[in-house]
Amino acid sequence: MKEIEIRELKRVKLNAPVMIEGLPGVGNVGKLVVEHMIEELHAEKIIEIYSWHFPPQVFVKDDGTVRLCRNEIYAWSSPKLDLLILTGDQQSITNEGHYILTEKYLDIAEKFGVSRIFTLGGYGIGHLVEEQRVIGAANTPELVEEMRRFGVEFMEEEPGGSIVGASGLLLGLGKMRGIPAVCLLGVTSGYLVDPKSAQAVLRVLCKILGLEMDMHALEERAKEMERVVERLKKMEQAQAPMRAGEELEYIR
Amino acid sequence: MKEIEIRELKRVKLNAPVMIEGLPGVGNVGKLVVEHMIEELHAEKIIEIYSWHFPPQVFVKDDGTVRLCRNEIYAWSSPKLDLLILTGDQQSITNEGHYILTEKYLDIAEKFGVSRIFTLGGYGIGHLVEEQRVIGAANTPELVEEMRRFGVEFMEEEPGGSIVGASGLLLGLGKMRGIPAVCLLGVTSGYLVDPKSAQAVLRVLCKILGLEMDMHALEERAKEMERVVERLKKMEQAQAPMRAGEELEYIR
Amino acid sequence: MKEIEIRELKRVKLNAPVMIEGLPGVGNVGKLVVEHMIEELHAEKIIEIYSWHFPPQVFVKDDGTVRLCRNEIYAWSSPKLDLLILTGDQQSITNEGHYILTEKYLDIAEKFGVSRIFTLGGYGIGHLVEEQRVIGAANTPELVEEMRRFGVEFMEEEPGGSIVGASGLLLGLGKMRGIPAVCLLGVTSGYLVDPKSAQAVLRVLCKILGLEMDMHALEERAKEMERVVERLKKMEQAQAPMRAGEELEYIR
Amino acid sequence: MKEIEIRELKRVKLNAPVMIEGLPGVGNVGKLVVEHMIEELHAEKIIEIYSWHFPPQVFVKDDGTVRLCRNEIYAWSSPKLDLLILTGDQQSITNEGHYILTEKYLDIAEKFGVSRIFTLGGYGIGHLVEEQRVIGAANTPELVEEMRRFGVEFMEEEPGGSIVGASGLLLGLGKMRGIPAVCLLGVTSGYLVDPKSAQAVLRVLCKILGLEMDMHALEERAKEMERVVERLKKMEQAQAPMRAGEELEYIR
Repeated sequence: MKEIEIRELKRVKLNAPVMIEGLPGVGNVGKLVVEHMIEELHAEKIIEIYSWHFPPQVFVKDDGTVRLCRNEIYAWSSPKLDLLILTGDQQSITNEGHYILTEKYLDIAEKFGVSRIFTLGGYGIGHLVEEQRVIGAANTPELVEEMRRFGVEFMEEEPGGSIVGASGLLLGLGKMRGIPAVCLLGVTSGYLVDPKSAQAVLRVLCKILGLEMDMHALEERAKEMERVVERLKKMEQAQAPMRAGEELEYIR
Repeated sequence: MKEIEIRELKRVKLNAPVMIEGLPGVGNVGKLVVEHMIEELHAEKIIEIYSWHFPPQVFVKDDGTVRLCRNEIYAWSSPKLDLLILTGDQQSITNEGHYILTEKYLDIAEKFGVSRIFTLGGYGIGHLVEEQRVIGAANTPELVEEMRRFGVEFMEEEPGGSIVGASGLLLGLGKMRGIPAVCLLGVTSGYLVDPKSAQAVLRVLCKILGLEMDMHALEERAKEMERVVERLKKMEQAQAPMRAGEELEYIR
Repeated sequence: MKEIEIRELKRVKLNAPVMIEGLPGVGNVGKLVVEHMIEELHAEKIIEIYSWHFPPQVFVKDDGTVRLCRNEIYAWSSPKLDLLILTGDQQSITNEGHYILTEKYLDIAEKFGVSRIFTLGGYGIGHLVEEQRVIGAANTPELVEEMRRFGVEFMEEEPGGSIVGASGLLLGLGKMRGIPAVCLLGVTSGYLVDPKSAQAVLRVLCKILGLEMDMHALEERAKEMERVVERLKKMEQAQAPMRAGEELEYIR
Repeated sequence: MKEIEIRELKRVKLNAPVMIEGLPGVGNVGKLVVEHMIEELHAEKIIEIYSWHFPPQVFVKDDGTVRLCRNEIYAWSSPKLDLLILTGDQQSITNEGHYILTEKYLDIAEKFGVSRIFTLGGYGIGHLVEEQRVIGAANTPELVEEMRRFGVEFMEEEPGGSIVGASGLLLGLGKMRGIPAVCLLGVTSGYLVDPKSAQAVLRVLCKILGLEMDMHALEERAKEMERVVERLKKMEQAQAPMRAGEELEYIR
């Protein structure tokens, strides 16, 4: 395995697809959205991405087998719209890795002739959210205007903000290549996995893309994931003392 | 010395050997098992591995001489079974080093025509262990089934688990090369070096490999190591204030 | 994008220009000074510098569009004096990046035939400043003498001091190339953005360069920035809990 | 400047010199010893070593000029004994840098045909030292025996010890090249710069090398340095709040 290893699982042809990124982040909002889309659309995994910049770990699956930490790209095709969906276990854990991996994602985007990129995430406000809102950023003024028409908010009065990780770099580095890109952030507390915020983001995204999608499954998934999180949090508390010291930890 | 330096001490021929990894980790379980095996089987050291990815330190031996921090590979041959045993002082302390070193271990494994890899470690549960158990993960479903027959537990109901470091990566990166690999984790509190858990892992491993091995020496070693740990812990407490600040520390 | 990417926006010819560096640092003193100069002189941006050594983030502008974290070089020309002004969002966040980026800045300085470099920053004293002072360091004894004549203080009685980051390395690495360079540090508390200290530094710098400049705009800017800082600090407090844990943070 | 830059200031010929390393570390013992030797012997600086692996900073000298963070090698020649003395501002602050820099030191050692290396440091025990002692480690058993005759202690009953940084790696990596090397550690509390411990180490080293040296200057220097340390500590306390946050710090 090299610094980055691209495993092409299947060759597909797509027609100027839209790329949608949903990697782990605040409230896990972006990942929840794209996982729901992959399931509902029966999107097909076509690429796996492995890298030294991901944590040195494997995940144990339900059947007892393992797989390396990785990112994945799914494809979906329809007469009106083609999609490339990017998700995964983790973002880079090195500084340069964020840049290097995002460039690889853009190489793939260009190879498929991507027409536009949407990056999805959460925008933590530090307290409970009363009204679901989606705020945005884009790499061209035209996209800002277009997004506004779909109810995406842009907060002009708050300068100095930044977007960290792949969701931000895909816009910044995408701009260098002339690929239009938008970031949609669901407002969330930032404390917990937030499927409600994910639903708000998905609703806006579907409107923009002209897609219809059953939200019910996401609600179910949301409830299920909340239970998992609760269980993980209990496990984590129990294992916390073990993590002290400088030994490697095996967390199953 | 380069990024990784392989010192071949002796050329040996092995017949489709089984590779067993036991590097430092939770409860030091994996390392305790392989150290016992090396001693009992009189396995012979054939390779030393040095790397920038190990901590920049030397260890002082009983005779006052030093040696660099390193990993080691031992060989053992018998009419029925050949072994390659991987152990060492430390795992990588850089992120990419985990990947790079594991690939080197697999290069060596392939050179010897390894038939199968067992990685050994501890699985910390954060409280005292009442009943000795060995849980597992593997990189093929067939191996999961085979291991189950030897009493290894696979915890289907607990998703989201991961194995960090060489014990995990040897399975994940080994799968990419088509090398079957199993991870055996002794359940342990995670607070202390745990030779009891090591015995449980060794017992299962011997059953799988069809090896007979005196456990008595491990029990003795366990007691002895517990005394060492106690002494080290006292020394560490005494030296703790010295470690504050940004100076390098000399710990003897 | 490579490890460092230099974007030349405009080709200009300058006559043995003076380079002035003001990157983020203690009290933001250096950056405040050069931002004021760029505005007052209507200096023109000629170069953008992108790098893996900057944080992996984009900044959201008032119009909702984003731009990558970067450093920038501005040019200004007059019959008596030409300037190259270096500023930016961040300094390197890796150790080697500080060295690598500073060498790039010096490559650019040499290409333009820079006659002299001034690096600007704050010198934090840990308590409120009663009297505005500017202390200095230089990479030749002649420059020390010259600066003294302009009221820059050199603190001979305090050995062991150091200057960290680009403001220091431009002097040290500049010396290797034979480029005369001075560091001017405005004494500041170190707790807050300090436009008053920036004014003191700018006043000395203008005297040295024989430049006349309206300070009024800096005063206004100072007040405005203080309000921004207050608002940011409140936002930061509100978002602080979200930042715990190991997830990526989206801070707008 | 490259990853490592060797500046040869003067070409000298030495006769199988002994190399003595004294870089910053516990109690600053090693550096105090070699600084005293350089002064007393009027050793001449012949090499400067710069590297990305050192902190990105310059030091301000008494005359207001700066110099880059670096390591230095001094030469001293006499009819009976030639010396190469390695000292400097800092050790590497990256993991791989420790290995890479130590290899460079050994390249230089080999070029001069070094007969033997002594690395000097402190051995922190976490409480006040009542009786000055020097403990050792070496990279051959013969050297251990030889050192014992000069009163150096080797603590056989304390296994598991290690020596971190250049003082350790010069022994470990030196062994790979067949260069005999000894580490002498002055027992010290580990809390403060310890010129008393430095005197103990110097006394043993002089006995081994057959050198006579006035200790009085070291005593004076010790007192002087203790005053400096006190002053630095007060400055540090005053500046501590400034260091919070993620901005670069300018510490003069």
